[in-house]
Amino acid sequence: MTELTISYPQLRQFAVAIFRKMNCPEADAQLAADVLLSADLRGIDSHGVARLSGYVRLWEAKRINSTPNIKVVHETPSTAVVDGDSGLGLVVAPKAMEIAMQKAAVAGTGWVAVKGSNHFGIAGYHAMMALQKDMIGMAMTNASPLVAPTFSVERLLGTNPICVAIPADKQPAFVADFATTTAANGKLEILQRKNKEAPEGWIQKKDGSTSTNPHELKDGGALIPLGSDREHGSHKGFCLGAWVDIFSAVLSGANYGPWVPPFVSFLAPPADPVGEGIGHFFGAMRVDAFRPAQEFKSHMDNWITRFRAAKTAEGFDHLVIPGDPEREFEAIRMKEGIPLVDKVVEDLRTVGKSLGVEFG
Amino acid sequence: MTELTISYPQLRQFAVAIFRKMNCPEADAQLAADVLLSADLRGIDSHGVARLSGYVRLWEAKRINSTPNIKVVHETPSTAVVDGDSGLGLVVAPKAMEIAMQKAAVAGTGWVAVKGSNHFGIAGYHAMMALQKDMIGMAMTNASPLVAPTFSVERLLGTNPICVAIPADKQPAFVADFATTTAANGKLEILQRKNKEAPEGWIQKKDGSTSTNPHELKDGGALIPLGSDREHGSHKGFCLGAWVDIFSAVLSGANYGPWVPPFVSFLAPPADPVGEGIGHFFGAMRVDAFRPAQEFKSHMDNWITRFRAAKTAEGFDHLVIPGDPEREFEAIRMKEGIPLVDKVVEDLRTVGKSLGVEFG
Repeated sequence: MTELTISYPQLRQFAVAIFRKMNCPEADAQLAADVLLSADLRGIDSHGVARLSGYVRLWEAKRINSTPNIKVVHETPSTAVVDGDSGLGLVVAPKAMEIAMQKAAVAGTGWVAVKGSNHFGIAGYHAMMALQKDMIGMAMTNASPLVAPTFSVERLLGTNPICVAIPADKQPAFVADFATTTAANGKLEILQRKNKEAPEGWIQKKDGSTSTNPHELKDGGALIPLGSDREHGSHKGFCLGAWVDIFSAVLSGANYGPWVPPFVSFLAPPADPVGEGIGHFFGAMRVDAFRPAQEFKSHMDNWITRFRAAKTAEGFDHLVIPGDPEREFEAIRMKEGIPLVDKVVEDLRTVGKSLGVEFG
Repeated sequence: MTELTISYPQLRQFAVAIFRKMNCPEADAQLAADVLLSADLRGIDSHGVARLSGYVRLWEAKRINSTPNIKVVHETPSTAVVDGDSGLGLVVAPKAMEIAMQKAAVAGTGWVAVKGSNHFGIAGYHAMMALQKDMIGMAMTNASPLVAPTFSVERLLGTNPICVAIPADKQPAFVADFATTTAANGKLEILQRKNKEAPEGWIQKKDGSTSTNPHELKDGGALIPLGSDREHGSHKGFCLGAWVDIFSAVLSGANYGPWVPPFVSFLAPPADPVGEGIGHFFGAMRVDAFRPAQEFKSHMDNWITRFRAAKTAEGFDHLVIPGDPEREFEAIRMKEGIPLVDKVVEDLRTVGKSLGVEFG
């Protein structure tokens, strides 16, 4: 658990070098590193360089194609389906989001479903691309099945995150980026490292009964949809996860539900796929497709200011506007560097050595 | 709590007559009755005829306009903003959804934000309009502030529901229709009538501490976003409710957050409105804007069939596919009639008498 802190430029340079060794074209390596490290910067440590070796191993297993032919296979004025050709999700996703934004520039909104992809980093990176163009950005993805829907003991859905990024004027943007489970898998990993119990309502055992063991998933257990149990609305969390799965994969022609291939190279993908790779879904809406952008953004400032000023319960300083914590992390880590736990440092050294790139 | 059961045609005829007495044009009265009663049919009793007198009283208070000039005030190929002119939400909403579907027919998708409206019944009615055209339908609305975001003791959001309706082929459609709170307000009303306590995690007192008193809102308490508390993801429920509020009202120019006018005539709307009426947001996506409709619908059948067949925990028969319970209610009530509790019967008699329409 001791930590090494490494500067953002240094860590980024290492990631770029690894992606280059994977034979990614220079621009793709740069882009993939930007997307991957946006997670480390924003404090979502589970989705950053901690996963770098995972991408390498899937590439070694020929399950990631580092020189994909990413292309639009179907389109209308406001929609497209993109075939990622098994490329890095870190590269496929921002390219698909770019297409959504191009559609929005002409048609008011753009909606892009993606097949043939894999883990795309944090949803927030892609959705936030829209902000600089005064667009609302949306991003979602399905993922390896770790979640049991309400009443089920089978793992049928991933943690299937959604991000909605909405521009404001003087206030920072509203950025809601969340897994559709009670707790994301990254939270379990933290508990595992710290050797701590999980709260009730996050995990179930393989028979469906409640568990506080963060290692439970290794024994057939499952994560639980947002809401924790039926009485507290877990069926609504299931609705959210299912929605993400269907938009990402049934619309695009990717694998859905229990057929989503695992992110780890030591588990084989299902032998009977129902589509290609994993799926994502992106949206971009021009704010001025609804009302003048300045008017919208002024009202967003008013919305954010009013909510931030809400009277809070004793012991709480202020209401947290979605996006605030991640933005604060980013400001600190850009300046002070990114702390890495020993296990991640060791992992990066190993992957660096195997590809001939020195770490640190 | 004793109940009267009344046939659907008879109840519908009564509702149409009331809307006609409110001076709604014939077609609008028919449409409003259809939308309102779809709630009673689908088992969402809180949103059906139980609210009829509420609409009447708002009309009497001149806060609902029964002959509105509903019009598009801004548009692009895939978007529109509709001004509801203070019309019945029950009429404004399906007309706006119709526009979203017309846009989708041409541009692939259509997205309509609405201002100047009021309560629109159940979100499900509007989203499901898309199904018959092989489109995915979405509907959301903001509502009077009853919900305190995580850490807040102020009520800043409504129960802000979302519906996503997705067509299948031989299987019935996937219809997820849910409030973005742990429990909808209608569930509290049921507990109040039955004189029962609420589970922990549904309600907080005015100081933010937990409560099980279903009457707590009358004493400054609040409903809680989906997730119940921070540890179980209530900040995600807050993200969802905020998302609905911003799409429905900041995009359209309606009132948002604590400025949303109350649905009841005995509470005055805020003196400093930030927009017009309440807001809705609708979406329609042509399935074949992504892949051939038949291919999509066959995969939806496969999705639904696989999830329905999931292994369940002991004591649970099968996994519930979103939309199943409401569809089952509808089949039964269409045949056997709609049960109304005494309080609602009395309310309908009173409103009938005041407008010269006999009930039952």
